[in-house]
Amino acid sequence: MNLTMIEAAAARMAGHIRRTPLLNAPLLDKAVGRRVFVKAECLQLTGSFKARGGWSAVSALDPEARARGVIAFSSGNHAQGVAYAAAQHGAPCVILMPADAPQVKIGNTRAYGAEVVLYDRRTEDRDAIGARLSADRGLTLIKPFDDAQVIAGQGTVGLELAEQAAEAGIARAPVITCCGGGGLASGIALALAARAPGLQVRTAEPAGFDDMARSLASGRRERNPTTAGSICDAILTPSPGELTFPILQRLAGPGAVVTDDEALRAMALAFTHLRIVLEPGGAVALAAALFGENLPDTVIAVATGGNVAPATFARALERFA
Amino acid sequence: MNLTMIEAAAARMAGHIRRTPLLNAPLLDKAVGRRVFVKAECLQLTGSFKARGGWSAVSALDPEARARGVIAFSSGNHAQGVAYAAAQHGAPCVILMPADAPQVKIGNTRAYGAEVVLYDRRTEDRDAIGARLSADRGLTLIKPFDDAQVIAGQGTVGLELAEQAAEAGIARAPVITCCGGGGLASGIALALAARAPGLQVRTAEPAGFDDMARSLASGRRERNPTTAGSICDAILTPSPGELTFPILQRLAGPGAVVTDDEALRAMALAFTHLRIVLEPGGAVALAAALFGENLPDTVIAVATGGNVAPATFARALERFA
Repeated sequence: MNLTMIEAAAARMAGHIRRTPLLNAPLLDKAVGRRVFVKAECLQLTGSFKARGGWSAVSALDPEARARGVIAFSSGNHAQGVAYAAAQHGAPCVILMPADAPQVKIGNTRAYGAEVVLYDRRTEDRDAIGARLSADRGLTLIKPFDDAQVIAGQGTVGLELAEQAAEAGIARAPVITCCGGGGLASGIALALAARAPGLQVRTAEPAGFDDMARSLASGRRERNPTTAGSICDAILTPSPGELTFPILQRLAGPGAVVTDDEALRAMALAFTHLRIVLEPGGAVALAAALFGENLPDTVIAVATGGNVAPATFARALERFA
Repeated sequence: MNLTMIEAAAARMAGHIRRTPLLNAPLLDKAVGRRVFVKAECLQLTGSFKARGGWSAVSALDPEARARGVIAFSSGNHAQGVAYAAAQHGAPCVILMPADAPQVKIGNTRAYGAEVVLYDRRTEDRDAIGARLSADRGLTLIKPFDDAQVIAGQGTVGLELAEQAAEAGIARAPVITCCGGGGLASGIALALAARAPGLQVRTAEPAGFDDMARSLASGRRERNPTTAGSICDAILTPSPGELTFPILQRLAGPGAVVTDDEALRAMALAFTHLRIVLEPGGAVALAAALFGENLPDTVIAVATGGNVAPATFARALERFA
């Protein structure tokens, strides 16, 4: 993994993946007592940064592999990112999803053009089904974070941030990033280390699912006891990636942890002051930027996604807006 | 009014006013059966395009006038746009607002640094109070739309659109624009006529408050019977402006009209597919782009603002998301 791969991913994405804006709001800064800049990846195609990693991975395949197609295991943003990228490349795409995934997510993934294969979480082995499909059809598996081309794709957020921070006159700041397996955080960290060394990545996770923060503290890959039980469902992963963790160990600051209520409050403040829609898992970094302690007077948060159920969003507004 | 004034306004805004993104969403296009691009002015500083006109007008004053200060009559987005621009220029700013305006709007306008002067709508004459304040302190009145520098500022949306449409490969399309007095629509129309003549402005208004559509049809400035009674409160004005109407008469297509429910549906679709927050009046053009008839296969809508009460937004989601 290096800057060259990220630059190559950016070149393959040019004209296809959106350069998302770096937003800020004077009244939000006033309310919170520091300058908070938000990289709005919720405005990315498919509603999350995952379209970058999907595009990078699909576009990096050799033409024969691409023509055979790709497969991903996901009921969330990764599914939509890969499905969209595959469709735009004319590549067949299979998404393996638990049969009890929300209908809207199944429907959206199909609408992006993917073939959705459902399995029973209790009785069927996802990996075995995936391996059989891959073998039968010659599909390439695109992992959600532990894949060099996926990390390179997510790292293009860092290239944009380096430019946008310079335009805004920001030389030094933490770049707080919502973190599941660490694909986005590690990609951004690599890009910033090369292009804007005054900007340092810090991961943010939901309380109780802070495997990355604990791993960064202990120096080895710690596991979460479970991957269910937070509203921040988009970023609940069992443990840091094999590829991502060493990068973050080398380049990231200590990890931040926020509560579900803090994520909902951040969603409400983003609604009021930035007029963007965030999902709970996509608001975790903003929550850390708004409510964290011992932060400098200028902070950047990556708002990673905006695919949220209307009822969840309405509840955040009712409680906190 | 001409392109040179708009270009000069853009030069004065550079580095201060946000270049807002032109968004689109593949699944929204699929659902509606045409390509819909959205110029997201809800992401502008202060949450609406009004920051452009405010900046343009304040920055165009000679230094002595600016030092004496500015005044505006508004309880809405124009108030916040002018207040923000004045504060950034170090200019005193008085905003005259009805005493029964929502507390949050009064509070926000004060938070931007303005002095808010409240008056009683039933017993006091706004214009007389404004005239006295202006005379006493030498304040310059900044009108919401019938002011050449304000129109020039709003017209910078058109300069950006011309570039962004070219980048997206759009040579011909209607540019549907939410319309109150016509400041934004006329500014955009002037910019596009010079820079992207294949893009033609069409105004969009709430049903029952379609003074511009009727005026464009009749060839003279028609009036609305009232300026209250639609949830699209940001764009309820008595009649087209003296400066704006001749420009639109010359350059705009026929005006579109949408119902309040269509505006709410557009807000819900913008939430789901674009992850942006729109206020009802800011969603009128998108509603026309989504639900209008006899439109070509590519349409651009200007989403003008996102300052909406949480309860109104939650209601739109509950009913239509």
